[in-house]
Amino acid sequence: MQNYQDKTFILEAIREAEKAVPKKVRPNPLVGAIVVNELNEIIGRGHHEKLGGPHAEVHAIRDALTNSKDLSSCTLYVSLEPCSHHGKTPPCTDLILSTGIKKVVIASMDPNPRVSGAEILREKGVEVLHIHNEAAVQLNRTFNINQISGRPHYLAKIAMTLDGKIADADGNSKWLTCESSRKFVHKSLRTQTDAILSTAKTVIRDDAKLNTRFDDIEEELTAIIVDKSLSLLEASNQSLRIHYPRKKTKLILLANKKTPAGLPEHVLCPEGMFTDLGQLNFEALNRFLMQQEIYHVLVEAGGKMCASLHEAGQMDDLILFTAPKIMGEKNAVPAFQFSEKKSSNKNQHFVIKESRQFEQDIMTWYQAVDH
Amino acid sequence: MQNYQDKTFILEAIREAEKAVPKKVRPNPLVGAIVVNELNEIIGRGHHEKLGGPHAEVHAIRDALTNSKDLSSCTLYVSLEPCSHHGKTPPCTDLILSTGIKKVVIASMDPNPRVSGAEILREKGVEVLHIHNEAAVQLNRTFNINQISGRPHYLAKIAMTLDGKIADADGNSKWLTCESSRKFVHKSLRTQTDAILSTAKTVIRDDAKLNTRFDDIEEELTAIIVDKSLSLLEASNQSLRIHYPRKKTKLILLANKKTPAGLPEHVLCPEGMFTDLGQLNFEALNRFLMQQEIYHVLVEAGGKMCASLHEAGQMDDLILFTAPKIMGEKNAVPAFQFSEKKSSNKNQHFVIKESRQFEQDIMTWYQAVDH
Repeated sequence: MQNYQDKTFILEAIREAEKAVPKKVRPNPLVGAIVVNELNEIIGRGHHEKLGGPHAEVHAIRDALTNSKDLSSCTLYVSLEPCSHHGKTPPCTDLILSTGIKKVVIASMDPNPRVSGAEILREKGVEVLHIHNEAAVQLNRTFNINQISGRPHYLAKIAMTLDGKIADADGNSKWLTCESSRKFVHKSLRTQTDAILSTAKTVIRDDAKLNTRFDDIEEELTAIIVDKSLSLLEASNQSLRIHYPRKKTKLILLANKKTPAGLPEHVLCPEGMFTDLGQLNFEALNRFLMQQEIYHVLVEAGGKMCASLHEAGQMDDLILFTAPKIMGEKNAVPAFQFSEKKSSNKNQHFVIKESRQFEQDIMTWYQAVDH
Repeated sequence: MQNYQDKTFILEAIREAEKAVPKKVRPNPLVGAIVVNELNEIIGRGHHEKLGGPHAEVHAIRDALTNSKDLSSCTLYVSLEPCSHHGKTPPCTDLILSTGIKKVVIASMDPNPRVSGAEILREKGVEVLHIHNEAAVQLNRTFNINQISGRPHYLAKIAMTLDGKIADADGNSKWLTCESSRKFVHKSLRTQTDAILSTAKTVIRDDAKLNTRFDDIEEELTAIIVDKSLSLLEASNQSLRIHYPRKKTKLILLANKKTPAGLPEHVLCPEGMFTDLGQLNFEALNRFLMQQEIYHVLVEAGGKMCASLHEAGQMDDLILFTAPKIMGEKNAVPAFQFSEKKSSNKNQHFVIKESRQFEQDIMTWYQAVDH
């Protein structure tokens, strides 16, 4: 039975989960757990710290065991349903059962059908409560999309004017948003994603480095560039900033060509990324990216890419920065450049995760409703 | 000299000004005033209640005189600079001087160069303080634009999708925003304006009534319809809802034709509203509307009208409702439909007055920086 304390303690477990660093645990979820005794004292806490390492439940239970040898009158609060299968570590359900913990409270369920921790614990006589918490679900949006759809989580970021343009007719776009909007993109978006997806056209026009820069920090970021003709490998483009020296990230070129010989180790050029009609083959791309352990992709590209992503039903998140300007040109570049035919995904709806003002820019973070 | 109380009392004068009802005082400004004695007691208050009636200062001073015969040690706080000229009523400066009030604190200056109340009071030995208050300026945005530019204050309202479209390729738009967004438009925008500007195309397509409806209230509103060929007067359009019986408002048709004979009294059809090139002649329209005592116009029209308004430098306010949908059609109707040539007004900037969420719609209210 749910009691007053359960609601408070489950929030504490979620706060513990928030300590996990996405890039250190992916493709695993962010999870936090606490152990509470019969006096309502928190006697153990922990979160999943790194891929391959102990799960949150293990950390919390080990911590609790240093305070008390007998956990049989304790409750475990965990932000995500405990695992019940052998992965990189043994099932957490086994550990929970071995301690004799009498009650487990869960804030969100694991979408992976192989995970049935709640059911197994119940079968073994443990009281299991599910107190749904949206923040706990949001924490694992990338994990959930990876699990449910078997593909990366795509987040498109668009900076546009009031009349929906991302660049003027000459392609000039650099002045659009304010400095604090740009800092948010670097500090809160680029740092969280495994790779950034853009087009050769954008990269060449802006001489974009596509890494992460804020305050005094500058970090590498894997770049995935749609570059059908491999123009970025041409001699005249060798000095572009996208070719900065990379120690731990890749430059992935999506070309409609055979992989050239003699590429540097950090440059990948997978084949089969386009359909016979010359469209980006998202199915092949998704498979390739998951193999490359790229689970979360930030899309900063032009209007055609955003339209394609939407048509493919893969615009999971859309962050729209609206600058307080009107472009006022018929031939300026629109944020979404759809083709003649109607999008098959026309009726997709979004909900607002957050809306915020940066100086005179409005940032609105939308999430597709189907996730 | 400004003291601690001045800041508090000037806010009270502005609150008094907020009681004024725009439609009852236009073209006059909204003004509130209070009289405070040497014990820091408010002994008089008032606001401008109706056009032709006493100004706020008169109400406040009359109220104060019922409490004290001698106002010579009192301070007058007023949301707008007192008038100094004979209009429908005598100059407020005369009244203030006659009471011997020693100090006057003003929250915003009158943009009309004929008004130099502050200067006149100072010359006569009254201490005059100007404590600039943005809320006081905002209250009289319509008045200020009328005064400075000699034309109506235009507020464009646009409801669009994330990809900047106001209707699909078939012209369908009715489903765009949520009910609470639409209620805001009726209750907070249409009630405040003197007239609504739209096009015959929109009116016919949506069978739009263009009046004010919310809760159980339904009120008339003057409609200004761009209707070059007077299609709304055709027999087949006589049953449209725009032709509802009008007791106190007009239906103004902007046609590129001679005024037809035998129009009903509530239908106006002024000549000369288009240039030789067939463009709306804003200069002529503005003159006509000011003559008609239309000081504040809400524009709810298509993408071409919004583009024209912007090009004419007359988009004083822009209220953008963004619905959480993507139209996904190349040929859908854009919110701004610019012509081939670049807008001469390309570099106009806006500031955000307010941004608010209605269910899943984002409403952002922009104001052109030059006012």
